[in-house]
Amino acid sequence: MECGEEVRHIRLKAGMTVGELFSEFKGAGAYNGGALARACDILQTMYIDKEVLKFFGFAGAMVPAGMRAIVSDMIDKGLIDILVSTGANLTHDIIEALGCHHYHGSSCVSDVDLRKDEINRIYDVFLPNDAFLVFETFMQDLFSSLSDDSPYSILQILNEIGKRLPNGILASASKKNIPVFCPALSDSMIGLQYWLYKQAGKLKIDAFTDMNELLDSCFNAKKAGVFIIGGGVPKNFILQSMLMTPNGFDYAVQLTGDRPDLGGLSGATLDEARSWGKVTPEAKAVTVYADATITLPLLVAAVYERLEK
Amino acid sequence: MECGEEVRHIRLKAGMTVGELFSEFKGAGAYNGGALARACDILQTMYIDKEVLKFFGFAGAMVPAGMRAIVSDMIDKGLIDILVSTGANLTHDIIEALGCHHYHGSSCVSDVDLRKDEINRIYDVFLPNDAFLVFETFMQDLFSSLSDDSPYSILQILNEIGKRLPNGILASASKKNIPVFCPALSDSMIGLQYWLYKQAGKLKIDAFTDMNELLDSCFNAKKAGVFIIGGGVPKNFILQSMLMTPNGFDYAVQLTGDRPDLGGLSGATLDEARSWGKVTPEAKAVTVYADATITLPLLVAAVYERLEK
Amino acid sequence: MECGEEVRHIRLKAGMTVGELFSEFKGAGAYNGGALARACDILQTMYIDKEVLKFFGFAGAMVPAGMRAIVSDMIDKGLIDILVSTGANLTHDIIEALGCHHYHGSSCVSDVDLRKDEINRIYDVFLPNDAFLVFETFMQDLFSSLSDDSPYSILQILNEIGKRLPNGILASASKKNIPVFCPALSDSMIGLQYWLYKQAGKLKIDAFTDMNELLDSCFNAKKAGVFIIGGGVPKNFILQSMLMTPNGFDYAVQLTGDRPDLGGLSGATLDEARSWGKVTPEAKAVTVYADATITLPLLVAAVYERLEK
Amino acid sequence: MECGEEVRHIRLKAGMTVGELFSEFKGAGAYNGGALARACDILQTMYIDKEVLKFFGFAGAMVPAGMRAIVSDMIDKGLIDILVSTGANLTHDIIEALGCHHYHGSSCVSDVDLRKDEINRIYDVFLPNDAFLVFETFMQDLFSSLSDDSPYSILQILNEIGKRLPNGILASASKKNIPVFCPALSDSMIGLQYWLYKQAGKLKIDAFTDMNELLDSCFNAKKAGVFIIGGGVPKNFILQSMLMTPNGFDYAVQLTGDRPDLGGLSGATLDEARSWGKVTPEAKAVTVYADATITLPLLVAAVYERLEK
Repeated sequence: MECGEEVRHIRLKAGMTVGELFSEFKGAGAYNGGALARACDILQTMYIDKEVLKFFGFAGAMVPAGMRAIVSDMIDKGLIDILVSTGANLTHDIIEALGCHHYHGSSCVSDVDLRKDEINRIYDVFLPNDAFLVFETFMQDLFSSLSDDSPYSILQILNEIGKRLPNGILASASKKNIPVFCPALSDSMIGLQYWLYKQAGKLKIDAFTDMNELLDSCFNAKKAGVFIIGGGVPKNFILQSMLMTPNGFDYAVQLTGDRPDLGGLSGATLDEARSWGKVTPEAKAVTVYADATITLPLLVAAVYERLEK
Repeated sequence: MECGEEVRHIRLKAGMTVGELFSEFKGAGAYNGGALARACDILQTMYIDKEVLKFFGFAGAMVPAGMRAIVSDMIDKGLIDILVSTGANLTHDIIEALGCHHYHGSSCVSDVDLRKDEINRIYDVFLPNDAFLVFETFMQDLFSSLSDDSPYSILQILNEIGKRLPNGILASASKKNIPVFCPALSDSMIGLQYWLYKQAGKLKIDAFTDMNELLDSCFNAKKAGVFIIGGGVPKNFILQSMLMTPNGFDYAVQLTGDRPDLGGLSGATLDEARSWGKVTPEAKAVTVYADATITLPLLVAAVYERLEK
Repeated sequence: MECGEEVRHIRLKAGMTVGELFSEFKGAGAYNGGALARACDILQTMYIDKEVLKFFGFAGAMVPAGMRAIVSDMIDKGLIDILVSTGANLTHDIIEALGCHHYHGSSCVSDVDLRKDEINRIYDVFLPNDAFLVFETFMQDLFSSLSDDSPYSILQILNEIGKRLPNGILASASKKNIPVFCPALSDSMIGLQYWLYKQAGKLKIDAFTDMNELLDSCFNAKKAGVFIIGGGVPKNFILQSMLMTPNGFDYAVQLTGDRPDLGGLSGATLDEARSWGKVTPEAKAVTVYADATITLPLLVAAVYERLEK
Repeated sequence: MECGEEVRHIRLKAGMTVGELFSEFKGAGAYNGGALARACDILQTMYIDKEVLKFFGFAGAMVPAGMRAIVSDMIDKGLIDILVSTGANLTHDIIEALGCHHYHGSSCVSDVDLRKDEINRIYDVFLPNDAFLVFETFMQDLFSSLSDDSPYSILQILNEIGKRLPNGILASASKKNIPVFCPALSDSMIGLQYWLYKQAGKLKIDAFTDMNELLDSCFNAKKAGVFIIGGGVPKNFILQSMLMTPNGFDYAVQLTGDRPDLGGLSGATLDEARSWGKVTPEAKAVTVYADATITLPLLVAAVYERLEK
C-alpha cells in the first residue's frame, strides 16, 4: 500500500474566490471536502470535452430551496444536454415562472396552524396555497390549448410548458431545445392536473415514447457524463439508460445527503454502478455526501471559474 | 410545559417475544426506539379498524435485502389494500419468482472485478447477471402474450405478470386482486423490457389511467392509513393522492434512513404532510429514522403478535 | 468474485421470539439488518469464550432513553468485565438510583418555555431540574465522606458512588467489583460537582492512574472483545488501550448512528481499526449503523436467548 | 403563521468570492445552505462584538483532514479566546509540527495490508506509523524536561508543548497565551505517552484544576459566544461550563454531520441547549448539518471577507 500526496492544510484569505477555495479543498483532499474537490476536477474535464453527452439529474426539493436559477443558467451556458427531473422540481419551477414565490419559514412550527393559514411547508420553506391556484389555471389552459389528435410524449408536454413561460428551467430548456425527461410525471402536481383535465378532456400523454429518444441518445453518444443532484428516479433513469447499450458513463458526479449502507440506489456509490456496467471501469466518478443546498452552488461556482479562465 | 410518563428502563429476558420487546420499547419511549413503539400502536389501531383503506408504500432496494415475503405475507393476511412500489422492487420480485436468487456479498469489493464476473452489486448483496436473461425471456413472452388491441394500464400489466408467477408480491396481489401501482414503471427494468419489446411489437401501456382508480379509492375511503417503507415515488404518490380530495390520511407510519433537514420529501416528517392536508390534523403519525432492513421485520412481527392475540 | 449464500426472505410469525427473528435477519443477511445478525453471532461467540476479556463502551444519551437496566443486567450476568462510559450516562444513572426520573416528552417544543418551567430536554426526553438538586446533595455528601489523605482514582470514586446506590449501573459494578472507567469525568455533571466541592474541600482525584489498571488488563488478556454503544471517548479509550500492547481486539461490535465518511472515530468502521492494530487482522468485527435505542435492546435480547439455550 | 422573505434563487458567477456566494446562500435561505448563511451572520456579529468571550470547540478528525491551519490562523487573528479540543486533534497537530505528514489515501482498501505496511488509516487519509515514533521521542523528551515538584495542569502541559513547536495550533496558542483545554487528555496518544513516561518518571498532571480557570472565565464574561466543530467532549465541556453560572451563551454555531433524533449531545440542536440554560433564550444560534471538511473552510473564508471589509 502506498501513500498519495501530502495533506496540505487549508489556508483561507478574506476575499478569496470560490475557485481559490477549491484549490485548498484539493490540497487537503480528505473526506467529503476532498470528494468535492475531485468532483470539480471531473466536471471541468467533462464540460470541456466536446465529445461528451452531458446529463443532469435533478431530484430533491431543490427549486423551493432556491436552486432553480443554477439549473436554468447551466442550460443557458450549454452545460446540460439532457435533463432528467422529478415532477416536483418542475412544478415548483412553473410556480416561480408564473410569478409566485416560495418564502423563508421555519422547520419547528405547528403544521396544523400552517394548514389553517393555507401555507404548505417544505422543511423550512413556506409556500402559500394560492400558488397552486395560479398553477392550476395555467395547467388547465395549457392542456386545453393542445391538440387531442395524437398523443403527446412527456418531453413534448414539458416543451410546450416551457414555451409559455418567461423564465426558469423549463423555459431555458425549451429555448435551447434541451429535452427534459420526467419519467414519474404522474407522481407530481403536473400529473394531478392532467388527471383533473382528463375528467372532461381528451388530451393523451404517452409516458413511454420518451425512452426511445433517451436510448437513441445513449447509443449514439461517443462519451457520456452525468451530474446528479440527489438520487431518486432521475439517478436511476439516467444510469439504467446505459444498460441497453454497450456504453457506460465516463464521468459521474453525485451530490447527495443519503448514505450507501441503507442499500437504496439514491445513496449507492458510483462504484457500485460499475458492477452493473452503468459507469465504465475507467470512469472518473465521485459522490459527495452532504446537503446539496450547500454543495451544488459551491461546486458550480467553482466549475464556472475553471471553465471561464 | 408538562412531562409525560416516566421513562421505564428496558428489561430483557432470554426467549422474550418480539411483542414483549415492544412493550419495553414503549416504556422507554425515547428517540427512534420510542418512535418504533408508537408506530406499532398506530399500525395495530389502523389494521383493526375495518373502515380504513390500507395503503403500503414500498421503496428502497428492499426485495434484494430479503424483505419480499414480508410484503407478500401482508397481502395474504389482508393488511394491504393498495400497494405502491418502485419498479425496482417489482423487478427483483419477478426475478425471485422465476427461481433466480440474490446472494450474500460484500460492500467493499472491486466493482470492476464484479463486472468482469457478471455480478451486479446492491450494497452487500450480489445478483448474477444471468437473472436478467431469465427475466428478459419472461417479460418478452409476457408482452407478446398480451393483446395489442387496446392499451393496458400499469395496474393491468402488473396484474398479468402476477397471474403468471408462482409466488411473491405480484403473485399475492393478483390472487387477492390488490392493485399494485408503479407510477414510475419506465424507470425500471420492466420499463426497459417494454421499450425493447416496442422496437418490434405494438402493445400499448397507458401510464396515466391508473390515477383514476387511485383517486376514486381516495374519494370513497371513509378513513385511510398508510405504512411507508423508504420514501421516493411511492411516498409522494400515496400522499399526493389525497390532495384532490377533502380527505387526508388518518394513520401514517414511515420507516426511513433519510433525514428531514435535507428538505426532500423522502425524509420529510409526517407533520410536514399535515400542512399540505395530506395527513389530517388529528392523524396519528410517526416516522422511524433507521434502516428498514431492521425496523420493517421487527415492527411487522410485533404487529402480528398484537393482531393475533 | 464469488457469491455467498442465497438471500433467504424473512418470514414473520405472531409470537416469534427475538432469537427467532434474528434467524430471519441472518438468512436475509443484507445491509444493517444483516450486520445486526452478524453482531449477534460475534457477541454469542465472544460471551461464551471464557478466555475473552469483555469490554463494554457506553456513549450517547442512553440512560435518559431507558437503556440503564440493560447495562446493569449485563453486569449482573457477568457479560461485562470492563465498562467505559461517558460521564453523562453515569450522571443519569445516579439520578435514577436516587429515585428521580426521566420523562416522556417531545422534540418539537419551545425550549424557552421548558427553561421557564425548569425542565431540561434531551431530544424527546424531559428531565426536571429538581433531579440535579438531589444529585448535588448526594455528590457533595459523598465527597465529604471521603478521605482527603491520598488521591482517589476515578475508578475508586465511581466505586464509592456505586456502593452508596441501591441499583443501576454503578451499583451493579460495585457489587460485582467491575471497574468503571470514565476518562472524561471532568466533562460531566460529576466533574462539575467535584469542582464545586473543591471550592472549599480538599479531596484529590487523579485522572491518570486508571490507565495503569486498564493497560495491565490489556497486557494480560489472552483474548479481548468489545461491545461499543455509540462512539466518543469510550470507543477511542477502549481501542487505543491496545496500542501499547502486542495484542488487539479479537471480537468487536459497534452500534452507532454516525457514518464513516465524516472521518471521525465515532463513525469509523472497525476495519479501519485493523490498520492501527487495535483490532486484529483475523478479528470478527461489525458495525451496525442505526439508532442504538432500537438495536441495543434488540441485539441483547437475542444474545440472551442464544446464551441461555 | 406568516411567511418570511421570498426565496431568492441563487445566481452564480465565474470568479465570485466566497463572501459573494454567501450572499446567495442567504437569499435562498433554505435547509443547511440557509443555516450556513445564518451561521456566517452570527459569527460576524460575535467576532465584531468586543465584549464577547470567544470559545472554539474542536472535535472530529479535523487535523488529519487538513483543517489545522484554519484553527491556528484563527488564533493568530484573535478570533479564539478559549480553545477546547479533543486529544486526537492536538496529537495530529504535534505530529505535523514535528515535520511529519498525513497523506491522501483511500477508504476502500485492505486494512490488513495497511497494517503490514505500517500505515494507519483515518477514512481516506493515511498516516505512516513512523510519525508516532517521532511523536514519542518528542513527548518523552518534553516530559523529562519538566519539573517533578508540583503537578502540572493540562493547560500548562499543552502550553509547554506549544512553546516547543514551530507552528500549528498549540504553537499559536502558546504564542498568544490562549488556553487550550483538553478535558479527555488521557483518551489520546498524549495520554498514552504520559502513561508510558510514568512507568519510570514522576511528573504529575492534575486533570481537574483547569476547571477553575474555565469557570472563572465563564463567570467573568460579559457575553459569550461559541463556534463548535463536531460535537463530543469539546461541545459538552464548553456548554456545561455555563451551568454553574447565571450566564449562558449569547451566540452559538455548530457544524456537525451528526443528527438530533439519535438523542446524543453531539447531534442535539442548540435550541435544546436553551432548555438547560446553556444558551440564553435570546441567543442567536444555528446548527449546520454537513461534513465540516466542507463547511468549516467555506464558512471561515466568508467570515474573514466580512470582517476585513
